Amino acid sequence: MPSFFDRSFELSARTTFSGAFLDRLSERRDDSEFFRDLRAHPASRVVLMSEDAPLFASRGDERDVFFSFAEAESFGPLEDVILLGRSQERAYFAAHIQTNADTNHRSEGGTRGFSPAPSSKGVESVDLRSVALLGLVHSEALGLLAQAKSLVYWHRRHRFCANCGGPTASAASGWRRECASCGALHFPRTDPVVIMVTTDGESCLLGRQARFAPGMFSALAGFVEPGETIENAVRREVREETGIRVGRVAYLGSQPWPFPCSLMLGCMAEALSREVFVDRAELEDARWFTRAELSAMFAQTHPDGLRAPNSIAIAHRLLQVWLEG
Amino acid sequence: MPSFFDRSFELSARTTFSGAFLDRLSERRDDSEFFRDLRAHPASRVVLMSEDAPLFASRGDERDVFFSFAEAESFGPLEDVILLGRSQERAYFAAHIQTNADTNHRSEGGTRGFSPAPSSKGVESVDLRSVALLGLVHSEALGLLAQAKSLVYWHRRHRFCANCGGPTASAASGWRRECASCGALHFPRTDPVVIMVTTDGESCLLGRQARFAPGMFSALAGFVEPGETIENAVRREVREETGIRVGRVAYLGSQPWPFPCSLMLGCMAEALSREVFVDRAELEDARWFTRAELSAMFAQTHPDGLRAPNSIAIAHRLLQVWLEG
Repeated sequence: MPSFFDRSFELSARTTFSGAFLDRLSERRDDSEFFRDLRAHPASRVVLMSEDAPLFASRGDERDVFFSFAEAESFGPLEDVILLGRSQERAYFAAHIQTNADTNHRSEGGTRGFSPAPSSKGVESVDLRSVALLGLVHSEALGLLAQAKSLVYWHRRHRFCANCGGPTASAASGWRRECASCGALHFPRTDPVVIMVTTDGESCLLGRQARFAPGMFSALAGFVEPGETIENAVRREVREETGIRVGRVAYLGSQPWPFPCSLMLGCMAEALSREVFVDRAELEDARWFTRAELSAMFAQTHPDGLRAPNSIAIAHRLLQVWLEG
Repeated sequence: MPSFFDRSFELSARTTFSGAFLDRLSERRDDSEFFRDLRAHPASRVVLMSEDAPLFASRGDERDVFFSFAEAESFGPLEDVILLGRSQERAYFAAHIQTNADTNHRSEGGTRGFSPAPSSKGVESVDLRSVALLGLVHSEALGLLAQAKSLVYWHRRHRFCANCGGPTASAASGWRRECASCGALHFPRTDPVVIMVTTDGESCLLGRQARFAPGMFSALAGFVEPGETIENAVRREVREETGIRVGRVAYLGSQPWPFPCSLMLGCMAEALSREVFVDRAELEDARWFTRAELSAMFAQTHPDGLRAPNSIAIAHRLLQVWLEG
């Protein structure tokens, strides 16, 4: 085989939220009868988003994120019903629902002390970061919830046509919104974001935003802008945020990041300079870390209490690759 | 250096529209005084989009895509003025303008026989594909025009708030639109698209859409959907369009593709099956091509008159890598 396949692992397959397993049936999305039949089938299941958080049913000692339509509709009217896809003769949908379910929200930056409260109504919402961090569902269901969350969010924020201001309506099994006033078609949005570990071989460059948990440093990141390649976006972001010039860039893997609808493009970047100038509008701090220091951060034994990102972030995977390589 | 930098070339840097050279000054975008001062500076230049096509001035025997603001405003009122960035003390802007300039549109699928007519008014619009194919500007200006075209298009299609339907206004030097009604902030959209050459080592899999020029076959492509990695999007698209199962996927390079605002993610994909089932809703045809056959297509010596994509497309670059590798 040619050399572009030499990489013997797929980092993307190990990122959280990447466990999609459905046949997305995209060729059937415009078939409204097919959609109706699948929705009416008793084997079909729907995941429910209350605001931006998936709902869980308590079934004995277990939590379950999949509902029959009969059960789901007993909670209230479903909005924005989307056909996610099918697996082993079972169709999966997503929908938004307004509920008075108990809500568990993770505090920004960590889950220490977080424990979803059991719900008196037998249903609760748990924000998706906490679902991932606490391992409340298996990785395939997590991929499905990521798909569902981004799509439901997109529907809820696109009730109107950006072109003319008229109301839009869901179409194509939830994969398009259409404007009856001007005829514009709108498609789900996915925002590419570069995230990169910049290294001079011995050390890597990490930064922290003011909103991060205390002591946390992570890979730099930013949205890809119009007119940029992945590699040029990496160079611009690193230069803007730290003043470091970047030479070669290598893509290592990607991750769907449903907060609300990003595609994280994980890269390794080669530093051509050393002196850091922190852009204080973007970052609270940025500096170089040795492998030994980063290892201590992962082990939570850093003398200053510094920490590295947890395993749900692709930054964690990128930094592990660098530590091992 | 670690092995992820082993790749000795950067395919992205050789793709058409990737020649961005500006300091984008993103940390100054919210400084409206800075924006006003730069716009008023006599050294500043603006590129103009008439509908979706850049305007060219005839200056003697030369065409020029850069205008002073004084000259630009002599053609009519400027809409959606965007600060693109700065290079060597000169700031560059983009704007939309409604003109009665002569318009040169390339027929879909080819430029044979196309020649921009000289304009009686000294200004003409030429669609951006033709600008690239005919080499009307150097690669850095082409990158700037790509940035400008995607941004101007985004402004023109986002006059209203998708969240509430209210009018939006440009802010942040043209890098944001704001809704005064609901307070929503809107950012430029970039759509990630996977484009892949699928190969079993000996042959590669290409398809043709009905809208392609006669005889043209190219790499398969499709939008990345919510919940997908690059690699999984490649697998889904190839499976959907041709029935071929894909194993390993390698990212080789990316390209800004301003038609209207895509980021092309160029990949090589390893085929795990051989039998092609063409999805006739998406493709007119798809089949395997040997290296010899593809070489003949590039040389325009294929006995059936089949052709490969021209050099402005990243598909061309990917296929060249495969031919050479």
